[in-house]
Order: sequence, then structure tokens, then C-alpha cells
Amino acid sequence: MSAPSLEFWFEFASTYSHIAAQRIEATARGAGVPVVWRPFLLGPIFHHQGWNDSPFNIYAAKGAYMWKDMERQCAKHGVPFSKPSKFPRPSLLATRIAVALESSPAHLAEFVRRVYLANFRDDADTTSNDVIRGVLQSMALPDSAAVLERATANETKDRLRQRSEEAVARGIFGAPTFLIGSELYWGNDRLEDALAYCSGLRSS
Amino acid sequence: MSAPSLEFWFEFASTYSHIAAQRIEATARGAGVPVVWRPFLLGPIFHHQGWNDSPFNIYAAKGAYMWKDMERQCAKHGVPFSKPSKFPRPSLLATRIAVALESSPAHLAEFVRRVYLANFRDDADTTSNDVIRGVLQSMALPDSAAVLERATANETKDRLRQRSEEAVARGIFGAPTFLIGSELYWGNDRLEDALAYCSGLRSS
Repeated sequence: MSAPSLEFWFEFASTYSHIAAQRIEATARGAGVPVVWRPFLLGPIFHHQGWNDSPFNIYAAKGAYMWKDMERQCAKHGVPFSKPSKFPRPSLLATRIAVALESSPAHLAEFVRRVYLANFRDDADTTSNDVIRGVLQSMALPDSAAVLERATANETKDRLRQRSEEAVARGIFGAPTFLIGSELYWGNDRLEDALAYCSGLRSS
Repeated sequence: MSAPSLEFWFEFASTYSHIAAQRIEATARGAGVPVVWRPFLLGPIFHHQGWNDSPFNIYAAKGAYMWKDMERQCAKHGVPFSKPSKFPRPSLLATRIAVALESSPAHLAEFVRRVYLANFRDDADTTSNDVIRGVLQSMALPDSAAVLERATANETKDRLRQRSEEAVARGIFGAPTFLIGSELYWGNDRLEDALAYCSGLRSS
């Protein structure tokens, strides 16, 4: 019996999702677990919790620690990182494109990794159409103009809205989140535990 | 050169501090790092952040996940755990006694571990004088009545107040926190990284 797949729920503004995005494929491959990439927006969930900004900006001591911890964790995992000059960068544009790329999982994963690097390594303005178009053009995509068009289609917008509702319904409150059915693991720190759970299901 | 010591800042109401308290001495001994136990109150810090309850109660999805994660993490580390019927249990009484025991580090550590087990294994009411007196009497203390008396002395109260101010000044925003000088590591998940940092200082 093959291992069940692991759903990787990520938000482009989430720093720890950057680490998870860069390392998940190699780590999951080592565990023999397929990964399904699930772009979603944390904003509506945070808003519902009464936050109109990142909790790392609202709670200063926690934010100061997060940046230090990011440096340490990125060094530990060999993930490039440089604190961006603006945080958080709104993620709607990139998220819509990620949803539009879901029919092509390998391109989706590559796009996501490149957007995180643009934001959290190169300090590029990932809210800009030009920057995001540049990311798409840097990839070996058959037709990046069609992807950009699909990103703003009603079907994509609806899908993203449903994704946000699904996130709440399944108990998601932060990112990255790893889901295996109803089993939820929160945070880059829990990736290995989530994969071990998948592997256990396969062998049982 | 011997390794610098690691300060272990804990709050009795903190679930993840329970895991850290039960495993820190064996883990730190393995790394050759001395541990200094630092009881403190998170309440004033949370209050300053606008929280009058545990964030795990304020944010329901996060709380539901925390209890599940506690089960998993305690199983992983071999730490006894059973969800208490009341959470959080106010920690002022136990914290004052812990501060009063600081002149006797081995007794302090044993008292702390036993209070966490009373709360997070036995569901005992650790706000009760009788329960806390029972914990003290279960230990091989020369004079537990004197400890109880010292716990409510002005000197102890002042020391605890100063401790809370020190926590804020040093950037503490949650528990458990591990401090090596100004280097801060937050969360039971970071104990190994904090110890590795101490060991690195010794060998450099």
C-alpha cells in the first residue's frame, strides 16, 4: 500500500511557509510521501481573530524573536533568507496565480518556491504585476500569459474563496499547515512528524 | 572551558513548559550544560498584549490543535500527560514557592516537575494550598513549613515582581523560554538548538 498524500497548506506572506516550501519536496521524497500543494489566504482567518496585521507586527517581542529564529532555522535547513524591507507583503496576486497553476503541480511548486525567494531572499515587491510576471517568465511555462489571465478569472476567484472556507472548516489557524485527512500538523517544525504519520499509515 | 549555563524560564500554566520541565535535566546533562531554573509569571505579559485568558482559550482552533499536539509531543518525549479539566490554573501560589526554593536548586527542580505532573497528569487543583502542601510534603525537604512561610514573605513577592520585569526587559513573550545571555530560544521545540548553542560557546 502506498503512503497517503500530505496536503501542504501555505500562505505567501508566512515566513515559516518559505522554509517549508523550499525543503518539503526533498524531505517528503525521502519519506516516500506525495505532496499536494494548497495555496490559501490567512488574512481572512487572522481578521476573524481580530488581527488586521501580522501577529508578528502586533506583538513586538514575538516579532523580534521570529526574525532571529528565521535566521537560525534557515541556516539550519540551508534555505536562503534575508529579512524583507516590508512585511507582510499582501499575497492575493501570487495566491491567485498559484491556484490557477493547480492543474500543473510541478509548475505550481516551482512558482511558489520562486515567489518565496523573491520576497524572502531578494526583497522584491511580490505585490507587483511586473515582479510576478517576471517570476512566471523565468520558468519554462508553455504560456505564461494564459496563466496570468486564468488567475483573475471568476472560476479561480471562487476556488480561492472556497479554499479559505475549507481551511476554517478543517481547523487551520496558521501556516504552514500539513493535513493528512483530518490530522493536522502546524508549523515547519512539524513537517517530519507529519511525514512519519503518513509513513505509519502506509505500513499499517 | 566549561559550557555557559542555560536559563530555563517557565510558567506553571504553560503546557509546553511541562514537557520541557520533565525532560530538560537529562537532555542538558547529555550536552554538558548546567541549567538554572527561572520561575516567572506570564500573566502580566499576556495582559499587556491585551489577553485576559490563555491565547489557547481565546483562539479556539489554535487551542484545539494545542491539546492534540500536546498528546503527540508528550508521547514522543515519554512525558505523562492528561488534559486537565480546568485550563489555565492560576500559578501564583506555586510560582511563589518555586521562587522561595531558588536557594536550593535540586529541590526547586523537583518541586516544579511534581507540580506540573499534579496539574497535567493528575488533574489536581494546583491553586489549592492543600495540594501544594501535599507536593512539598511528598519531597524529602528538611522543613516544608518554612518554605511555605518564605513563599509569602515580602522578599519573595518583590523577587517575583522583579523577575517579571526582567522577563519583559530580556524580550520574553511566552514559555518555556531558554536564555543564554541575550540569546533567546522560545518553545520546547528549541531546547536542543539552545543547548547546541551553549556547547558551541564552550568549544569556541
